[in-house]
Amino acid sequence: MNTQGQAVLLLACFGVDAEPWARAFATLAPDVDLRGADAPGPPDEIDYVLAWNVPAGGLRAYARLKAVFSLGAGVDGLVGRPDLGETPVVRMVDESLAQGMVEYVLMSVLRHHRDAALYARQQARKLWIPHRPPLAQDRVVGVLGLGELGGPCASALAGIGFQVRGWARTPRSLPGVEVFWGAAGLSRLLQGCEILVCLLPLTPDTAGLLDADLFARLPRGACVINVGRGAHLVEADLLAALDSGQVAGATLDVFDREPLAADHPFWTHPSVVVTPHASAFTHPESAAAKVVADIRRIEASRTPTHLVDRSRGY
Amino acid sequence: MNTQGQAVLLLACFGVDAEPWARAFATLAPDVDLRGADAPGPPDEIDYVLAWNVPAGGLRAYARLKAVFSLGAGVDGLVGRPDLGETPVVRMVDESLAQGMVEYVLMSVLRHHRDAALYARQQARKLWIPHRPPLAQDRVVGVLGLGELGGPCASALAGIGFQVRGWARTPRSLPGVEVFWGAAGLSRLLQGCEILVCLLPLTPDTAGLLDADLFARLPRGACVINVGRGAHLVEADLLAALDSGQVAGATLDVFDREPLAADHPFWTHPSVVVTPHASAFTHPESAAAKVVADIRRIEASRTPTHLVDRSRGY
Repeated sequence: MNTQGQAVLLLACFGVDAEPWARAFATLAPDVDLRGADAPGPPDEIDYVLAWNVPAGGLRAYARLKAVFSLGAGVDGLVGRPDLGETPVVRMVDESLAQGMVEYVLMSVLRHHRDAALYARQQARKLWIPHRPPLAQDRVVGVLGLGELGGPCASALAGIGFQVRGWARTPRSLPGVEVFWGAAGLSRLLQGCEILVCLLPLTPDTAGLLDADLFARLPRGACVINVGRGAHLVEADLLAALDSGQVAGATLDVFDREPLAADHPFWTHPSVVVTPHASAFTHPESAAAKVVADIRRIEASRTPTHLVDRSRGY
Repeated sequence: MNTQGQAVLLLACFGVDAEPWARAFATLAPDVDLRGADAPGPPDEIDYVLAWNVPAGGLRAYARLKAVFSLGAGVDGLVGRPDLGETPVVRMVDESLAQGMVEYVLMSVLRHHRDAALYARQQARKLWIPHRPPLAQDRVVGVLGLGELGGPCASALAGIGFQVRGWARTPRSLPGVEVFWGAAGLSRLLQGCEILVCLLPLTPDTAGLLDADLFARLPRGACVINVGRGAHLVEADLLAALDSGQVAGATLDVFDREPLAADHPFWTHPSVVVTPHASAFTHPESAAAKVVADIRRIEASRTPTHLVDRSRGY
């Protein structure tokens, strides 16, 4: 709280242009005192942080935080940080983020479904060879994670006509989607699943899930799309599965280390599509409104929406 | 009619494997006498022809035809043929064909919408540069033709959230799609239309519609997807528009001359995706059932479904 009694919000967003966020907050909540990371003022005045890619220890000075808001969907960069202690962490749930992810996932699934890479190779060789593809209704697509992003993606894929299977931590119902859960459910989901999409939160349980063992349980020639977190994927295992033909192609938007190193084999692999963590963006206009609404709730002693449960990690 | 009084169907399908069709007809209609193009028997016995890519004059011998069925959606290869006279021509309307087209069009629109070509160029240069795209709700997509293929494509695009405009010969209503018609309607549709899909029937009115004049009415940097017929597009005009930057990219599945000649500049153009007339396939199982149902209708002196109106050309 500042000396005028106003709530103070620090924009600690690294690698992101903070200017549209500042504009959005200034318009939506002129009574909230906005601080930039370069001039935060007295640390004890900071009530809230909007955080992205904050370096380790970078939040230690702020001892009186009421909540930290994640700018993006993933909170693995905030959960378990020693410099945050027990400060409440709030996930970003933004309609624009979900819509962007739906578009990216539909495009990527359709590219694998409709052999876009094969046709590109044929075009490079000037080969006119049509291939009759199965229809969506004859193709099984698996979506790992049925949360704020995975759920809408699974529904949209079902809307196009795919046979969609979803995997969640706990049982749930999603129209048009066959839902599996738990370790046994994962095994059943993978059987005959020709296109697999990872949209899980990153937790100790899900890290490294996309490994040689999982790839071996997919049908030969399956495709993998990772839009979760880089650490979901064991990169060396994917390269080996691509080389053996067990996995035919991959679309990857997230990586263990970002930006992807210039000498990383994914860049030049003929069966890998690389995008630079560009599957979906939080839109400052809609997302700032959500943060402001949560600040209002907290100031009124209510619980913010989408509070992270540290025990499950998201 | 053969000497046993059975209806006789000739499979005159060139460049297509007739075997799955023969199997489908044999299962669905064992009472129909099937003839192959290599051994048609007495020409006067032939009642019906399932036709695709029949050479000029190739139907002249069959003087007692009751109807000709087109194997594919386009009937421009049948309408106006001197060797057919006034024989009724029946269009192929097949759910599988429409579903395949929806998948291809969604994939192609999303690739342009989400800058797939730009990211591919960046990947080739190992460049990690994210670009924030507009959401589908902020993108105008135009669909020329709202028939058995264009209608489902326009609806599916609207279902993903795009601002969809459709162009038809006559006024009509399609939920989620803003419908335009006539020459004035086309001009209004093109204003601000960033992605244009052609799914028109080929008629004297629509031949050459995708020309320099039309491209000039699109916003600079628009993308064009042609899944209608090759003759809808003035190929030289598209090349000029791509070179000037007026059109930023094109996805082409149909061409003036197919297969596309090895020296055609489309093959190697960096902004053109070429596919070999592979956007959608008629599926023998479902399509043969439609032909059989129409043969039953005609034998019962009823009008077949989707009879071609020669005056409008489709």
